[in-house]
Amino acid sequence: MTFAALWSALEPIGRHPRTGGYRRYAWTAEDATLREWFAGEATVRGLELVEDRAGNQWAWDGDPDETPGVVMGSHLDSVPDGGAFDGPLGVVAAFDALDRMRGLGLRRPRRPIGIVNFADEEGARFGVACAGSRLLTGTLDPDRARALRDADGTTLAEAMLAAGRNARHLGPDVDALRRIHHYLELHVEQGRGLADLGRPVAVGSGIRPHGRWRVDLPGEANHAGTTRLEDRLDAMISASGFVLAARASAQRHEAVATCGKLRVEPNGVNAIPSHVTVWLDARATEEAAVRAVVAELTEVATNLGGTLTEESWSDATSFPRTAEFAALLDDAPILDTGAGHDAGILANAGIPATMLFVRNPTGVSHSPAEYADLGDCMYGTDCLGTLLIELTS
Amino acid sequence: MTFAALWSALEPIGRHPRTGGYRRYAWTAEDATLREWFAGEATVRGLELVEDRAGNQWAWDGDPDETPGVVMGSHLDSVPDGGAFDGPLGVVAAFDALDRMRGLGLRRPRRPIGIVNFADEEGARFGVACAGSRLLTGTLDPDRARALRDADGTTLAEAMLAAGRNARHLGPDVDALRRIHHYLELHVEQGRGLADLGRPVAVGSGIRPHGRWRVDLPGEANHAGTTRLEDRLDAMISASGFVLAARASAQRHEAVATCGKLRVEPNGVNAIPSHVTVWLDARATEEAAVRAVVAELTEVATNLGGTLTEESWSDATSFPRTAEFAALLDDAPILDTGAGHDAGILANAGIPATMLFVRNPTGVSHSPAEYADLGDCMYGTDCLGTLLIELTS
Repeated sequence: MTFAALWSALEPIGRHPRTGGYRRYAWTAEDATLREWFAGEATVRGLELVEDRAGNQWAWDGDPDETPGVVMGSHLDSVPDGGAFDGPLGVVAAFDALDRMRGLGLRRPRRPIGIVNFADEEGARFGVACAGSRLLTGTLDPDRARALRDADGTTLAEAMLAAGRNARHLGPDVDALRRIHHYLELHVEQGRGLADLGRPVAVGSGIRPHGRWRVDLPGEANHAGTTRLEDRLDAMISASGFVLAARASAQRHEAVATCGKLRVEPNGVNAIPSHVTVWLDARATEEAAVRAVVAELTEVATNLGGTLTEESWSDATSFPRTAEFAALLDDAPILDTGAGHDAGILANAGIPATMLFVRNPTGVSHSPAEYADLGDCMYGTDCLGTLLIELTS
Repeated sequence: MTFAALWSALEPIGRHPRTGGYRRYAWTAEDATLREWFAGEATVRGLELVEDRAGNQWAWDGDPDETPGVVMGSHLDSVPDGGAFDGPLGVVAAFDALDRMRGLGLRRPRRPIGIVNFADEEGARFGVACAGSRLLTGTLDPDRARALRDADGTTLAEAMLAAGRNARHLGPDVDALRRIHHYLELHVEQGRGLADLGRPVAVGSGIRPHGRWRVDLPGEANHAGTTRLEDRLDAMISASGFVLAARASAQRHEAVATCGKLRVEPNGVNAIPSHVTVWLDARATEEAAVRAVVAELTEVATNLGGTLTEESWSDATSFPRTAEFAALLDDAPILDTGAGHDAGILANAGIPATMLFVRNPTGVSHSPAEYADLGDCMYGTDCLGTLLIELTS
């Protein structure tokens, strides 16, 4: 089976007919279809399928309880109206790299080989990114995870139950972690770094520190037609001020800050908003810059009578052996990234992890405009295979 | 049956247990329950129940096709998390006023008496306020009405069908209009006018001109962590600027402007918004002031690469005979209002209409904090009855 054939089987799943974007959220019907696809690809290759306590899917060639193995993979879920490559590229490339290695007739590798599909990487439904790897490594508390709610009020525990899983078993899984000798994740680049350099693949040096905060801003519900401007406490005015303050603060501190999600109550055309919740995403090269932005915005929220609450935080991540691997891959460039990944969660839990990035000509990510050339994807798969052979022989 | 008994039957319908506010949207299960209540109250009084082509409910005592009648009423739907009084007060008072008039043993009135429940006054579900009276009078195009969509994508035509009505019949209903000699609407005040004056009831002089506009602001979807600030086109930044510009423009022109409803796409924490839709509500004493605000904001939207589209417009309304009626009601004060009402739609269609306002001690409206004292409501009903007797004898 070729890369293109693997890829084309995934393409229609969860694609929205109007936007052309993907809506593949954790523990939905689309997610179940993607998991079935993963299980099917594992089965036809004779791999042993295991699901860990957090719902991540592992497909093993060899016994990782005897000798820890080299794991390749990524995730299959998406942000709302996301692109086709973010996540699936790493999983498809993993199956293809395994096929090619087997096709080369190499002698039995010294280590087992695993392929992983991490659950709920984007956090699109329950708000916590990398939920699967965070649960696995113990950086997401299982009680908190079970109680997370989606926009319809369904908890993660209820959603897992509806998908035939029992959320009672959620929690760190040291057995699953012990099986990983090294983790390899191929990912579409989420910026223009490689396009600007004219190179197809980079080795990831690390992930910038980043976090998510929830900002609750109060107002007083009242009639839009009868309440004088000076008598109003309009939560939308507060939220607008907050959004602009976040941008200005990020600019001052060489960080990025985004308010990508908003919830307005009661959200009626002729009702003054009584409450607006804004979610803040902030990242920078240096943790101090993110902390400075959040400190300033905490003050802004407080002055507006509101609160700012941390929902997740990820320390800066450094991946090991980057220069060595770059040299193996035709002197590939080394780039860091502002995006969080399961590889970062594993690395911060002490597991050697490596990321490879594939050129994205548009530089756009989390959008249907995200793109990677088939030739670049296949070259990325070659690179993944090179590191796989290096780490298993 | 007393006012309080009528009132208490309505209280639990559509009340949200957490917010304490009402969620009574057109053509929902809650709406059906409210309509059944109306039909039941009409039946026990021996009134003839008629539904017009727009879905408004009319209960008649006497034959209005022979002699046009005096109609009292209001609406039973609500804004999201609205208060208990806005709408239902006028309907309950209408039944109570009829009961009291009959209790007085007055000789048969010279004109029929009608009670009306206007459909979808708040426009909370489909975005057009006073949809029932606008359809009735022909100021809402039936094709446009049928195609209106709620947040789930359901059209008004589909919602009516699900509620057992056929939207093919929508359109102006001259027969229903011809039956109205005079329309009387009692309504809770949506401001502090009466509370400041220390008076329980006012006669409405008119309704300020007002309208609703939809503002579409484009952005470019991209990743919140990897896209440099200078490379972004973030629709949320544009929306925030627009919201603050609307407030500033209203202030300059002695108008009010509100952005109470917002829709963000794709609304993901780590995705730069690709599109934000903001709804603008603007009103003023003078139409010129509203037009000046809208002209400025059209320019703001255009400069942001967006568009501003009118969704509804209501001319200034003057109610007739206000001084005469105020004199009848113990020299009640005369107040205008910034809120739209079915009485205004009828008046602008040439039907004599009168509004009475009942004191609202909080001055708050479209919120669970909206309030009217039982004594004031009963005095308001007395006043309604006084005008009813005046107009039917």
